[in-house]
Amino acid sequence: MLERIAILRMGEFLLVSIQVDMHDRLATRLQDELAHEIVRTRARGVLIDVSALDTLDSFIARALANIALTSSLLDAETVLVGIQPAVAITLVEMGVQLEGLRTALNVDRGMDMLREALAETASSAGELDEA
Amino acid sequence: MLERIAILRMGEFLLVSIQVDMHDRLATRLQDELAHEIVRTRARGVLIDVSALDTLDSFIARALANIALTSSLLDAETVLVGIQPAVAITLVEMGVQLEGLRTALNVDRGMDMLREALAETASSAGELDEA
Repeated sequence: MLERIAILRMGEFLLVSIQVDMHDRLATRLQDELAHEIVRTRARGVLIDVSALDTLDSFIARALANIALTSSLLDAETVLVGIQPAVAITLVEMGVQLEGLRTALNVDRGMDMLREALAETASSAGELDEA
Repeated sequence: MLERIAILRMGEFLLVSIQVDMHDRLATRLQDELAHEIVRTRARGVLIDVSALDTLDSFIARALANIALTSSLLDAETVLVGIQPAVAITLVEMGVQLEGLRTALNVDRGMDMLREALAETASSAGELDEA
């Protein structure tokens, strides 16, 4: 098994597609590499795709929440995309919280969500400038 | 190890990020699923990201070439993106051919390449109409 999760640059966003069981070390490494990549590329948003995952346990949920928190400190929004129906049902049944994580159906919708969030930030910043 | 490679829809393109050792069965499954996804989504291009791979042997090269060939039969262009420098050097040293595969530095450049290819197809089709 390869021990790397690719971080892809797509315009002003970064895309991470999680396709392996994320154990402790790999989650920490992803968090670390993603933080550096956000700074290096000045990315404004992060899309985390989990469509390849058949299960999403509380450990991964916490790891993803940590990643979202780190990203927000670096001024990047995080959207979780591609949650499978069965995974969504299990998350609810098990009471797993995806704190601080927005979700969208797929990458396309997630990118729309990020663009809207950025546009809102820009317009409210504009209002402040005018005040 | 999870036995699935996610296929992500991004507008009119599909993105596949290969992050696991692709053995025979997984390569066949990817080829199959991608073909169905191209038809289902009417995608015009496929981006295959290999930035997570430290090695790319002749088996994977052949699998990727087969995927590109299948896609082209379904009227979708394929671009291979994210080849690591060390991988590129090894491919040349070992004489591995990436037949029928265009390559681009990263996802952004790959998407530009696909858009240009589509624009060319559209304009040459226009010329035929005028003739």
